[in-house]
Amino acid sequence: KQYRIAVIPGDGIGKEVMPEGLRVLEAAAKKHNVSLHFDHFDFASYDYYEKHGQMMPDDWKEKIGKHDAIYFGAVGWPAKIPDHVSLWGSLIKFRREFDQYVSLRPVRLMPGVPSPLAGRKPGDIDFWVVRENTEGEYSSVGGRMFPDTDREFVTQQTVMTRTGVDRILKFAFELAQSRPKKHLTSATKSNGISITMPYWDERVEAMAKKFPGVKWDKYHIDILTANFVLHPDWFDVVVGSNLFGDILSDLGPACTGTIGIAPSGNINPEGDFPSLFEPVHGSAPDIAGQGIANPIGMIWSGAMMFEHLGEKEAGKSIVEAIERTLAERTLRTKDLGGNADTTACGKAVADMVD
Amino acid sequence: KQYRIAVIPGDGIGKEVMPEGLRVLEAAAKKHNVSLHFDHFDFASYDYYEKHGQMMPDDWKEKIGKHDAIYFGAVGWPAKIPDHVSLWGSLIKFRREFDQYVSLRPVRLMPGVPSPLAGRKPGDIDFWVVRENTEGEYSSVGGRMFPDTDREFVTQQTVMTRTGVDRILKFAFELAQSRPKKHLTSATKSNGISITMPYWDERVEAMAKKFPGVKWDKYHIDILTANFVLHPDWFDVVVGSNLFGDILSDLGPACTGTIGIAPSGNINPEGDFPSLFEPVHGSAPDIAGQGIANPIGMIWSGAMMFEHLGEKEAGKSIVEAIERTLAERTLRTKDLGGNADTTACGKAVADMVD
Ligand SMILES: CC(C)[C@H](C(=O)O)[C@@H](O)C(=O)O
Ligand SMILES: CC(C)[C@H](C(=O)O)[C@@H](O)C(=O)O
Repeated sequence: KQYRIAVIPGDGIGKEVMPEGLRVLEAAAKKHNVSLHFDHFDFASYDYYEKHGQMMPDDWKEKIGKHDAIYFGAVGWPAKIPDHVSLWGSLIKFRREFDQYVSLRPVRLMPGVPSPLAGRKPGDIDFWVVRENTEGEYSSVGGRMFPDTDREFVTQQTVMTRTGVDRILKFAFELAQSRPKKHLTSATKSNGISITMPYWDERVEAMAKKFPGVKWDKYHIDILTANFVLHPDWFDVVVGSNLFGDILSDLGPACTGTIGIAPSGNINPEGDFPSLFEPVHGSAPDIAGQGIANPIGMIWSGAMMFEHLGEKEAGKSIVEAIERTLAERTLRTKDLGGNADTTACGKAVADMVD
Repeated sequence: KQYRIAVIPGDGIGKEVMPEGLRVLEAAAKKHNVSLHFDHFDFASYDYYEKHGQMMPDDWKEKIGKHDAIYFGAVGWPAKIPDHVSLWGSLIKFRREFDQYVSLRPVRLMPGVPSPLAGRKPGDIDFWVVRENTEGEYSSVGGRMFPDTDREFVTQQTVMTRTGVDRILKFAFELAQSRPKKHLTSATKSNGISITMPYWDERVEAMAKKFPGVKWDKYHIDILTANFVLHPDWFDVVVGSNLFGDILSDLGPACTGTIGIAPSGNINPEGDFPSLFEPVHGSAPDIAGQGIANPIGMIWSGAMMFEHLGEKEAGKSIVEAIERTLAERTLRTKDLGGNADTTACGKAVADMVD
């Protein structure tokens, strides 16, 4: 079978790391006899917005809705487009309208990447953050009253549905069950956020009953972030709401040295819609245009895409190639103390794939 | 003038660290000719709840509302009382009804406390987290519909009022202005939480105009937590909503080695109501009853209380005594690799006060 991949480089360094991602995907596809077809799209970008006054064509769903996956660079630059236009008109739209209700991000200390945490070595930190990706704190319900007076107030609802909470918990428990440690940690804040978070806890407890083989615990988000720093070895699968998952999946990669190499999947597990794979780093305006961006986040996202498509061997070969590349100082980009540029690093990974 | 302090040890290790806090307060008061009067209260504790079926007497406000400050241990143990009874019936009630709208917590790497962050030394990390303490994500507005069906959902409103947001920002900007670096960082998430957080940003911008001498920036909470780990030296005063401030003021102390020594103030700056000073650690059921709890968080909270009362010299003498005590391995408690028990550590600090 041939996989049809929608390729969307987007903005900023998204455009610079995408060619390296594609290079490595192609190398791995060749070695593992996987047939890939790429369709390139220029929307979900500032350039497209400038030409068309909107981030995406009206028929964007027809254009990419039948693909097997979306391979995405970054969006959100230059700042002159407001977030509610750029992000809510692309990335968050994909998540909602393609029902990519799982955001999945590995937290893994890799060889060659110095840990900001004292004394931690590769192997010490290796877990997944599973984030609810469609509802929760990122809601569209709320508003403002009495503008420009002393009585002014704004309100925004966090919304948790039974469907939304249960399906992300099920995904997380299943992931935990598939791993050697079989350990799930739930992020909560039911002692302070007194309505939605106790509901989350209640559903975790109910779901846990269906997975008697999984050991689980929960921490309030405040002490959980502290424990990411103090005890990152405690975790195996960590599940959180849209906001808590967002925080933990930036903090986790920071604890392993850099968000520059972190990948992510925005996944619709049922396969009713394409899932989207993107690096965590975003468009990085501060270094865009210099050719120095680290392509590993993009490349690793490609490995996750292969995994998702069921091409486990091809995915694994990319992750191993990344590990071998990062272990060599000269092959790393500047942000990791190396001297390779984006292309050199991407080529190195492609060469290492076997 | 004599200061009247309401002393509430509460639960768990709160009862164990309180005597050491009082010991050091008395020592510093004597050296600096400050007159303190302590009134002891047994409510806001499990013991009180067991006897009376509620956390506090009906006239709790009359009992402690006229004091100059409240010196508080910890609440929230044993777990058999639900949070909405124990916490919402005491600590959060104080914050709301005494309008303690500022939560203030230092993040400072102290001598003798090993940093979990590689290569950081005392002096490298020294900032304040200013947290809105009465509204925001900790609201009482929301509910559940269609219980026990597939349509079930819960919703909870985040509420930000002009009054509530502006006064915390004013406090934070004033604090920044009083410090050498004059630098304020605002925690936001306006790219995802699309109604309340853009409002927060808007008010920050408006307030910044009144403080032209303060340099300010903002980060989304996800990357901000990452930067606490990667660049803790960037910060001077960090201001956040109730939830974001809660997270940052646990993560910050974790980055400086332990939340066991972190102090906090719940402050009503106008002095209409007493402010409350408490260690960050909570009741710590896992080590309660063993006499090994670290009393430094309690003691340091006493220093913050002196500061708040205007007794700067007495406050400073306690902080310096803490620094000298922590520098000696034998005077530290077990959690910091020492062998002192709670009392020995407290006595050591009291002896060091000058
Ligand atoms: C106990 C809990 C409700 C409280 C909070 O979240 O405010 C605590 O974490 C704190 O930071 O004082
Ligand atoms: C850009 C932003 C809206 C987004 C989010 O908060 O979801 C990003 O931080 C992420 O984690 O993908």
